[in-house]
Amino acid sequence: MNITLKQAQAIIEKAKAKALEIDTKMNISVVDAGANQVAFVRMDGAWLGSADIALKKAKTARFFDMPSGEIGKLAQPGGSLYNIEHSNGGLISFPGGIPLKNKDGDIIGAIGVSGSSVENDHTVAKAGTEAL
Amino acid sequence: MNITLKQAQAIIEKAKAKALEIDTKMNISVVDAGANQVAFVRMDGAWLGSADIALKKAKTARFFDMPSGEIGKLAQPGGSLYNIEHSNGGLISFPGGIPLKNKDGDIIGAIGVSGSSVENDHTVAKAGTEAL
Amino acid sequence: MNITLKQAQAIIEKAKAKALEIDTKMNISVVDAGANQVAFVRMDGAWLGSADIALKKAKTARFFDMPSGEIGKLAQPGGSLYNIEHSNGGLISFPGGIPLKNKDGDIIGAIGVSGSSVENDHTVAKAGTEAL
Amino acid sequence: MNITLKQAQAIIEKAKAKALEIDTKMNISVVDAGANQVAFVRMDGAWLGSADIALKKAKTARFFDMPSGEIGKLAQPGGSLYNIEHSNGGLISFPGGIPLKNKDGDIIGAIGVSGSSVENDHTVAKAGTEAL
Repeated sequence: MNITLKQAQAIIEKAKAKALEIDTKMNISVVDAGANQVAFVRMDGAWLGSADIALKKAKTARFFDMPSGEIGKLAQPGGSLYNIEHSNGGLISFPGGIPLKNKDGDIIGAIGVSGSSVENDHTVAKAGTEAL
Repeated sequence: MNITLKQAQAIIEKAKAKALEIDTKMNISVVDAGANQVAFVRMDGAWLGSADIALKKAKTARFFDMPSGEIGKLAQPGGSLYNIEHSNGGLISFPGGIPLKNKDGDIIGAIGVSGSSVENDHTVAKAGTEAL
Repeated sequence: MNITLKQAQAIIEKAKAKALEIDTKMNISVVDAGANQVAFVRMDGAWLGSADIALKKAKTARFFDMPSGEIGKLAQPGGSLYNIEHSNGGLISFPGGIPLKNKDGDIIGAIGVSGSSVENDHTVAKAGTEAL
Repeated sequence: MNITLKQAQAIIEKAKAKALEIDTKMNISVVDAGANQVAFVRMDGAWLGSADIALKKAKTARFFDMPSGEIGKLAQPGGSLYNIEHSNGGLISFPGGIPLKNKDGDIIGAIGVSGSSVENDHTVAKAGTEAL
């Protein structure tokens, strides 16, 4: 019940294809069930600062088994999880991180994408999940 | 005037029983009067990211001798303690952390719980305090 | 193929019993297959600074699937892994960390013990592994 | 004069082929001329703790434009760079990191490999450099 490198690379290739299709340059990270990074790519010309964000989005999605943006909704000022980002060495709580499930529905890891608008980041991450 | 491991484990067992009763999966941490961790458990299937949050809630409760959620009320934008979470290597200022007192009312440590809604986290932490 | 809380607690109890038997006060940490902490106890009067060391020993043992002391042999001045301790947010490379295996031989986590001589730390960790 | 993702992926594939050939499981990282990670893979079953080491070897090789092991020779007790590993958020100064040059001899990045003996790590890193 853990992701393989082959799966992670297929997910990244699918995400990258979507990134090209919508004319964006992305950092794409995949972590395993233990929230440890399995594979990563930064597309040519993509933001340098988005590498760490992609990884933190993937970790955030696996840490709480939900899309990173869901955490963000609860982490706003006045929200129940305000400033949760200070935990775990830094979370990223806006969209672009999505848990990865096998065909039995078990969570086997997560993908994190960063490099464009959060809508585009989420779209590319979503495309990646479809490789499973 | 410091918590013992035996007390900490009794607190955790009581908290865990409450967590099971309300059908949640929790990370539960107990710190001593010096804000150093005494005991910790992560229930099977509980969020990985909640381990650090449970510890930070317990530390926050002992650092300021009040429930972590009380700090959060003052830490909102415009509030008197805005962004206090940046101190002490990261605070967590939403509910789930509660100081622990002996029968004389001395603070001997704190409990921190994370893994569900903040209401549930607080409920489970509260149950833990009743073991004293 | 991951450790359960029940297993982790049995391991800790067994290790604690050994610590009492040899008249030591220990910090005992158990991590899962993803190197994330599952359970921890600090015995009354045990060194405060050993909590982090126990966790780092457990992580080191799982990070490299061998006892932490084996890493230390290679990490001496002039050795092939000199100063490896600077990686992964800090390793501990002296004895007291041991991988945990299930009956099929799969590594399902690791135990880390700190609070006495490294020989005693290793002895207590070894006792813990026998709970599986 | 900077590495492309296509080049980084070719380097990683070549390194991975060598890792399989010599029956090892590696973490492989490629950084660019700015010492920022471009691509990374962890082979199935490779040590979890070697991901950070692979990245730090690649960074070390690019930070000083020489193989990571050359730094290590100077970083021994009494050596001119003793404990240089404390800089830059942690260096790794044993073999497995090698600068990457284009056909004009310009350094365009570095590769870092970790997961076996340092000799094997270096061999796999060297194989990766031959993809350029």
